[in-house]
Amino acid sequence: MLSSRLQEVLDGPWAHVRKAARAELAGDKFVAVPGETIDEARERVTRLLRELPADPGVAAGFPIEYGGQADPGGSVVAAEMLAQIDLSLMVKAGVQWGLFGGAVVALGTTYHHDRYLRSIIDADLLGCFAMTETGHGSDVQQLRTTCTYDPATQTFDLHTPHDAARKDYIGNAARDGRMAVVFAQLITGGRRYGVHAWLVPIRDERGEPLPGVTIGDDGHKAGLLGVDNGRLSFDHVTVPREMLLDRYGQVAPDGTYTSSIDNDIRRFFTMLGTLVRGRVVVGGSAANAAKSALTIAVRYGESRRQFTAPGETREVALNDYLAHQRVLGINLAHAYALHFAQDELVSTLHEVQTADGPVDEHRQRELESRAAGLKAAQTWHATRAIQAAREACGGAGYLAENRLPGLKADTDVFTTFEGDNTVLLQLVAKGLLTGYRDAFGSLDGWGRATFAAEQVRAMVLERTAARSLIQRLIDAVPGRDEEVALTDRGWHLALFEDREKHLLEGAVRRLRRGAGRKGRQFDIFNDVQDHVLEVARAHIDRIVLEAFVAGIDRTADDEARALLSQVCDLYVLSTVEAHKGWYLEHQRLTPARSKAVTARVNDLLRRLRPHLTTLVDAFAIPDEWLNAAILREEPGRQDVMAAEDTAAE
Amino acid sequence: MLSSRLQEVLDGPWAHVRKAARAELAGDKFVAVPGETIDEARERVTRLLRELPADPGVAAGFPIEYGGQADPGGSVVAAEMLAQIDLSLMVKAGVQWGLFGGAVVALGTTYHHDRYLRSIIDADLLGCFAMTETGHGSDVQQLRTTCTYDPATQTFDLHTPHDAARKDYIGNAARDGRMAVVFAQLITGGRRYGVHAWLVPIRDERGEPLPGVTIGDDGHKAGLLGVDNGRLSFDHVTVPREMLLDRYGQVAPDGTYTSSIDNDIRRFFTMLGTLVRGRVVVGGSAANAAKSALTIAVRYGESRRQFTAPGETREVALNDYLAHQRVLGINLAHAYALHFAQDELVSTLHEVQTADGPVDEHRQRELESRAAGLKAAQTWHATRAIQAAREACGGAGYLAENRLPGLKADTDVFTTFEGDNTVLLQLVAKGLLTGYRDAFGSLDGWGRATFAAEQVRAMVLERTAARSLIQRLIDAVPGRDEEVALTDRGWHLALFEDREKHLLEGAVRRLRRGAGRKGRQFDIFNDVQDHVLEVARAHIDRIVLEAFVAGIDRTADDEARALLSQVCDLYVLSTVEAHKGWYLEHQRLTPARSKAVTARVNDLLRRLRPHLTTLVDAFAIPDEWLNAAILREEPGRQDVMAAEDTAAE
Repeated sequence: MLSSRLQEVLDGPWAHVRKAARAELAGDKFVAVPGETIDEARERVTRLLRELPADPGVAAGFPIEYGGQADPGGSVVAAEMLAQIDLSLMVKAGVQWGLFGGAVVALGTTYHHDRYLRSIIDADLLGCFAMTETGHGSDVQQLRTTCTYDPATQTFDLHTPHDAARKDYIGNAARDGRMAVVFAQLITGGRRYGVHAWLVPIRDERGEPLPGVTIGDDGHKAGLLGVDNGRLSFDHVTVPREMLLDRYGQVAPDGTYTSSIDNDIRRFFTMLGTLVRGRVVVGGSAANAAKSALTIAVRYGESRRQFTAPGETREVALNDYLAHQRVLGINLAHAYALHFAQDELVSTLHEVQTADGPVDEHRQRELESRAAGLKAAQTWHATRAIQAAREACGGAGYLAENRLPGLKADTDVFTTFEGDNTVLLQLVAKGLLTGYRDAFGSLDGWGRATFAAEQVRAMVLERTAARSLIQRLIDAVPGRDEEVALTDRGWHLALFEDREKHLLEGAVRRLRRGAGRKGRQFDIFNDVQDHVLEVARAHIDRIVLEAFVAGIDRTADDEARALLSQVCDLYVLSTVEAHKGWYLEHQRLTPARSKAVTARVNDLLRRLRPHLTTLVDAFAIPDEWLNAAILREEPGRQDVMAAEDTAAE
Repeated sequence: MLSSRLQEVLDGPWAHVRKAARAELAGDKFVAVPGETIDEARERVTRLLRELPADPGVAAGFPIEYGGQADPGGSVVAAEMLAQIDLSLMVKAGVQWGLFGGAVVALGTTYHHDRYLRSIIDADLLGCFAMTETGHGSDVQQLRTTCTYDPATQTFDLHTPHDAARKDYIGNAARDGRMAVVFAQLITGGRRYGVHAWLVPIRDERGEPLPGVTIGDDGHKAGLLGVDNGRLSFDHVTVPREMLLDRYGQVAPDGTYTSSIDNDIRRFFTMLGTLVRGRVVVGGSAANAAKSALTIAVRYGESRRQFTAPGETREVALNDYLAHQRVLGINLAHAYALHFAQDELVSTLHEVQTADGPVDEHRQRELESRAAGLKAAQTWHATRAIQAAREACGGAGYLAENRLPGLKADTDVFTTFEGDNTVLLQLVAKGLLTGYRDAFGSLDGWGRATFAAEQVRAMVLERTAARSLIQRLIDAVPGRDEEVALTDRGWHLALFEDREKHLLEGAVRRLRRGAGRKGRQFDIFNDVQDHVLEVARAHIDRIVLEAFVAGIDRTADDEARALLSQVCDLYVLSTVEAHKGWYLEHQRLTPARSKAVTARVNDLLRRLRPHLTTLVDAFAIPDEWLNAAILREEPGRQDVMAAEDTAAE
């Protein structure tokens, strides 16, 4: 079957993790349950968290000596698979092993690892990642919670100075968490050293909040009912000196602060950078939830017949309509493109995080930028694709029994958590404008004085892993633009690259010009904010395309490669079509060629029509996981109806 | 206050209904409750339905002699106001008084009116509108339920022949309905006469299903938990002859069928046409829910400060960011534009439905087309705007206590119920292609043989009510396009009109060319489906703009008019920007002017920045109805934070 061969390609380097998940999590045991109360959902998800198989699992990223498998890539892919089963369970696992456990690994030292990692991996010790505050979500450098060292008692005093400084939206806080990694401003000897993290007990054995800790419940949310998000405030809570996660900054008993990184901001973003995996998980999970939604909608659209075609007795399937194909086919092409990009990102993450020796700082920054950009692209794609799938299923798409409402509600927050998408795009753009030199994973928008307009410069475009392949294709483009076939891959690559480059250079020019004028520095950046965000989007489009091209190049099976190539054509030309205004404004396309792009998109949709189900079958999502009543209806019903039509008309 | 004067403009011709609703439904009694179980929600909404004030209310459309006020326009506006309070309550009221009661009024005769209308208005008799079937949603002409007359017993036999013919998604069915208006194929004397409606008891006094009636529950949905949607099947249920709603078709005791309309299809669509109010209500309700969401997001964006601007101590408000303005400001401009269009539609509906004498068929078709088009435009706008508002509020936007999740979940189905939006756009386009001649409100896609490609012809563009004003503005456009100011209203009108006309003519040409070739008739239409849908969108854009222009022209207050004019500029130029690819492809804009449009949009957003809160204040939605915890936070918190910033830095 073509779909099986395609599945082999998609399963990629962590195929064993995907296959194990399909086998070990088979059936409906772990599957999301629609219509639960919040208490039922929380109870179920917490229970199932402890029953998840360890190997391969979301905890695969932990060091082998504590029971993990030192397989960060595998842990991300395991989370992506969970996202197809139950997004609450995925997020709960991500909070426990990714954020909480991940912070203990990355920011703590042997003292913390020896004492806590085993019980974290076993889910005996459930914990929180307490960074975000009600008043400060994206600007984490400016968190208001303080943790002040007192040499007399050799303890820290953790304190929430006012309501806006309470920790908010914290997973595992409202019900289950026993400890929390709390981010706060470190103060010792009367000086601030920026944000650090402490491991802080928040509940006693019986689950009651510890003295000085106030715990609130975020209550009902749009979705993710199984995750107990809550609020934490600290009223002068005493924290032992040893509980500072002190890999990047240490406080001696006498209060002396030391760190291998002098600059406070640089240190903080180095710490944050170690936590990049969370964004990779969120992006990949969103994209995998979108695959579930598209699978449901495409299969429904194949069986659902709406109107009788003139002169025929059999009704036309929804998937036969061009308007339906435009929605589902294009989203499907984007799902494929993003799949290859995510695969490449996971591989890069795995290499960086398993490399021996000192961290390659440039590589780390590039990883952070790609993680940020692909998180934004994949979560927005998920919001769009799941909405499209919901609408494509009509009223049936609104019923909880057909899964789409759950997919939609659960993934909705992904565009704004683990970094707000707009802020992440700014981070990507900033990296491009400074060549990652001063980017530092900062989420500070355009605010900080450390990034002045004068510093911007267009970096040399850095190619992805497949750079020689890409260059070869671009070099092979024959003749002038107008004469090149619309499906010439080299032309596609050159077109995407040109757009990114031109946008980037234009942004640099406008920022420099702004810097030369008087006015508030904020306005200089704000005036070009839309342009700068477009730079980031164009960059991500290119990264995604290059990953897709490299993935096709790796595909050995001829038939699979040919089909993927058509899907890639559709990804490219639908993206060009979406930006045709820009290409025409900048005379990269003539009006005639622009119209030809639209015609070709429609033509590709017609050609791909017979393969729509093949393309979703290749996602290989088990029926129990899809959990949609409309796909379970008795076979043959449509035939009954068709027969009846013939009889009646 | 400017916002109060603006409110007067927006409150429009049914200002008394809006003001009465704000007064009589004040407080939190009727307000949506997040986090309810499905049983709690259903119980509460059913109870509150009976406590809704009658005057002015959703039941205002009923004839005066039965306790109504013969005010169809008022009933729509009352529903729009309910949509700001609780969408479940709005839909429940819409099912009871709009769909169920409305069908009895429009399709029944004095016999039915005398017997049932008072108890329907009092909500003593709760009922369903049972049209949609599981297997046939949009193609209502092809419903499978049959109702066969037997002269021997002088009764009908109502029957569901197979599962796909069961009635589905029926509001009031799962729990409350005692009767249903059931749509089925009328068969008498061995001949079918097309779809008719019967008033059928479905539950007994104790709420148990009557013999032969099977009632299912659609269970949990994405939203609208307070509405008890369900499924109805009939196993040879006997229905007395008198229960046929026989205004448009009568069956004599001996089984003889009579009707004032010979053609079965024409008769059916005439019947459907009387029910147009449902679409007007859904469109208006969606737009009003979007206003609630935009109000929450704009007010939050005004108080919420994220990053510190360089060189300043006070943090920048979210609303200061261009990217934020691009999202909220443009959606707000569209909300204003659609408000005026909906107002005009409601006035037209009111005139048509209260006119003496025979129905003006052309006017009725035009009303149906506008209702369809504006329903699609407003519900898609709501989906976009509420999503944008949710994301603009970050994590806070995901918490049920901040209302946005409820608004999003409840309105989501509006794009596909009361007519799937894509199907409705086809209806609009078909009306344009045939000059309403053969359109007949049919939802049959391109299928029916009654609509052949040869018949298409571009109709003369029919202007809206404000036609002389529009023509005057267009005639006053000075000079060549390139030289006209970007904010020249006549140029705007001409630009929108030109796009519609060109698209329409192109569609006609392509359909004619297709008809000249061999091939399946389905393919002829399907090949141009995207083009044809674009015709409908361009048409709606023009209708909306013309209504906005007329509304501004009616505004007496200078300051309000000036502000509205800027909002209209933003509506126009952001719409042009969204379609700039088309304008460039067709050389209606030069590249330079296209870039200038984007620059002007940004400039307008900067100018409107200080007025964002004024614009949402003018919606005059009571705080209790907004029901968002983030807007209730203690005043002065931000000042505390700002003071602290100053101290700390």
